[in-house]
Amino acid sequence: MALEMFRKEETLAMRKKLIGQSCRLFYSDDPVKIVRARGQYLYDENGKRYLDCISNVQHVGHCHPSITQAATTQMELLNANSRFLHDNIVQYADRLAATLPDKLRVFYFVNSGSEANDLALRLAHQYTQHEDVIVLDHAYHGHLTSLIDISPYKFQKLTGQKEWVHVAPIPDIYRGIFREDHPNPAQAYADTVKDVIDKVHQKGRKVSAFFSESLPSVGGQILLPKGYSTKVAEYVRSAGGVFVADEVQTGFGRVGSHFWAFQLQGDDFSPDIVTMGKPMGNGHPLSCVATTAEIAGAFTANGVEYFNTFGGNPVSCAIGLAVLDVIEKEDLRGNSSRVGGHLLDRLQHDPFGDTVGLFVGLEMVTDKEQRTPATDAAAQVVRRLKEEYICVSTDGPWENIVKFKPPMCFSMEDADLVADRIHHILTERLTPNPTDCRCKC
Amino acid sequence: MALEMFRKEETLAMRKKLIGQSCRLFYSDDPVKIVRARGQYLYDENGKRYLDCISNVQHVGHCHPSITQAATTQMELLNANSRFLHDNIVQYADRLAATLPDKLRVFYFVNSGSEANDLALRLAHQYTQHEDVIVLDHAYHGHLTSLIDISPYKFQKLTGQKEWVHVAPIPDIYRGIFREDHPNPAQAYADTVKDVIDKVHQKGRKVSAFFSESLPSVGGQILLPKGYSTKVAEYVRSAGGVFVADEVQTGFGRVGSHFWAFQLQGDDFSPDIVTMGKPMGNGHPLSCVATTAEIAGAFTANGVEYFNTFGGNPVSCAIGLAVLDVIEKEDLRGNSSRVGGHLLDRLQHDPFGDTVGLFVGLEMVTDKEQRTPATDAAAQVVRRLKEEYICVSTDGPWENIVKFKPPMCFSMEDADLVADRIHHILTERLTPNPTDCRCKC
Repeated sequence: MALEMFRKEETLAMRKKLIGQSCRLFYSDDPVKIVRARGQYLYDENGKRYLDCISNVQHVGHCHPSITQAATTQMELLNANSRFLHDNIVQYADRLAATLPDKLRVFYFVNSGSEANDLALRLAHQYTQHEDVIVLDHAYHGHLTSLIDISPYKFQKLTGQKEWVHVAPIPDIYRGIFREDHPNPAQAYADTVKDVIDKVHQKGRKVSAFFSESLPSVGGQILLPKGYSTKVAEYVRSAGGVFVADEVQTGFGRVGSHFWAFQLQGDDFSPDIVTMGKPMGNGHPLSCVATTAEIAGAFTANGVEYFNTFGGNPVSCAIGLAVLDVIEKEDLRGNSSRVGGHLLDRLQHDPFGDTVGLFVGLEMVTDKEQRTPATDAAAQVVRRLKEEYICVSTDGPWENIVKFKPPMCFSMEDADLVADRIHHILTERLTPNPTDCRCKC
Repeated sequence: MALEMFRKEETLAMRKKLIGQSCRLFYSDDPVKIVRARGQYLYDENGKRYLDCISNVQHVGHCHPSITQAATTQMELLNANSRFLHDNIVQYADRLAATLPDKLRVFYFVNSGSEANDLALRLAHQYTQHEDVIVLDHAYHGHLTSLIDISPYKFQKLTGQKEWVHVAPIPDIYRGIFREDHPNPAQAYADTVKDVIDKVHQKGRKVSAFFSESLPSVGGQILLPKGYSTKVAEYVRSAGGVFVADEVQTGFGRVGSHFWAFQLQGDDFSPDIVTMGKPMGNGHPLSCVATTAEIAGAFTANGVEYFNTFGGNPVSCAIGLAVLDVIEKEDLRGNSSRVGGHLLDRLQHDPFGDTVGLFVGLEMVTDKEQRTPATDAAAQVVRRLKEEYICVSTDGPWENIVKFKPPMCFSMEDADLVADRIHHILTERLTPNPTDCRCKC
């Protein structure tokens, strides 16, 4: 099979003509054409190798042979819909259940994180019979109409805020309303959610769900203060609502120490609904909602079938099972902890404390006191790293966070290379030069 | 690879415990466990073969080796997201463009028909800057929150009708408000849409889109009267709205004579947006929205990126391309016409006229004059055919239509077998016995 059908300029011309321009390219002024990949490496049409610090979806590594093998074997056998009985879907649900708190034992399989979050909204509405949703500022939960409504990151630029959506401050102890010097930021931020609930009630409305990424990413790589989620869940449940943990980016061992990022909040915390997606199928469209028997029961009680044409088909589930196997066999969670910790250590000069594995944000500011986002400098780092054949992206409301979320097979040597290159770039003259960089983990 | 991991009763017990009960099984009182499939045949755990008249998703046949080969080859090479340049996505868009009217030449790739219809809603809203949507009665456009809102089939049982949604009569000349004896049902039904538009305007509201399946399926296998869509599009565009053709079930040659079911309306008709899904990836989660440069341009102009994590990835597109190749190489569109026509001929005793390929509905009534739906009889036919190892389903608002939408490799012999079995069943005593059956094609 030829690796290229068209010359790069032709591909680009066809893309401009045939694909909606809202679908943006990385490095839009000089996009990269990738024709093959393996592990944590991407190869362009000239065979040039890029170190991939972007592709969190290709979780166990690009083109992992075990995943391809599992897909091929099942594709040769059967790919029917889930209205027929099949072992893969139940085996996969059983394996996922083992990673979650006991109460989360009912599963719905869908095709994308967006489909999962939309279904979570429906489950919450049906169970609580309430309408209103509380989300964190800057949150992004997906591209569907219903999810733009609950994503301040999007609705502020588009349709505006609906009357049933309420935004709580993001619990960011670096840049938010309560900072490192606050004696108890977890409680203080949880109380802001309590205040939102009170305001909802004053309007004669009722809370259906609190929706939050377990480690807000677009919001700026925010590690929720420990104890925050437990307290919020208590307030939300008292108001008759449910706690939805969006693990679409952060699940499946990304954070190293735990399988799910919500587990960073401690053993006493369990969400009522968990949504998963990106890394789940290593690139195959596969996502899921996990919930309690009570919530699933209320959804069934409406008497209306939920049918997802492709969701939970034998091929998707075979791939999902293979991803779980590789995470275990190759100890990718351990690798994430070790390599993520090492990268953090190399980037921030200080010995690292708690890490969140291979989900690292390097926040750049032009002004240490005011913490003014160094957006341009971050963009320059991305461009300069591209010249060194290293792919990274920026994140956060001000795009001043250089983000590392590579395939989980990322090695110590890869981390050293990235850290060396970044140190080199930061000793150059960037315009304006960032005066401070700190790792947010 | 073992075909079974668990005994059937164990699979069923795990399914009941682990999978949301809203996800229903076929033959729920005695479900079928399928472990492998090939072409138009399904095999249960005992090796018993079922003739599959249900799986329209496995469009070119279950486990087609060309599709598996294309998927495997691309999975071994690369599966990155569409922010990197790649040939497959542009080649695939180019191939799809060749099947569509010239003006539909901008594509967005997504993961499911539901994601496609949700994006179509967003495109229409953004382009028209209007809010209201007109749909046909009994329509079903998907499982997402936004689509339940525009699906009378669902919202009547759930959230009720939103103020921005308007329902037009389904143009059913057998059972609707204008019937076979009407001199011009196309014009009469189109005028009902005009009436709805007038009412929308009287409320001071504006029409964003008219949304319709090109051959309404859940609505009762309705062949739109010729000329209807052209006239409706004229009215809708005059009101500043767009015409969305939902081809999720009916595209990719299913109707035999044409690649898209909207083409049954004649060469002078073109929708503004076409959504596609189910058969597109032969079971792989792959869907698409096609639209005009003007509509795509308006969507880009809002300045907000549309990013679909899995949409348009190289593996999905390789599979989509392979499906197009197989449809052509094996002349599946021709086969659909020939075999669909033969099935129709065998089922309705009369020589067949226009057919719509392998998308056949056999409507059963207890009363020829009143056309009272023979719901129970249709259910009995489904059960009896299952005993003969033939899988069919029912469709329509009264579930009195026995539906045939098999993989497109369905043969003349398969059609004869099904027709023989149905004739045999219908000569038995069913309770109550249907007095009439007619094919809706």
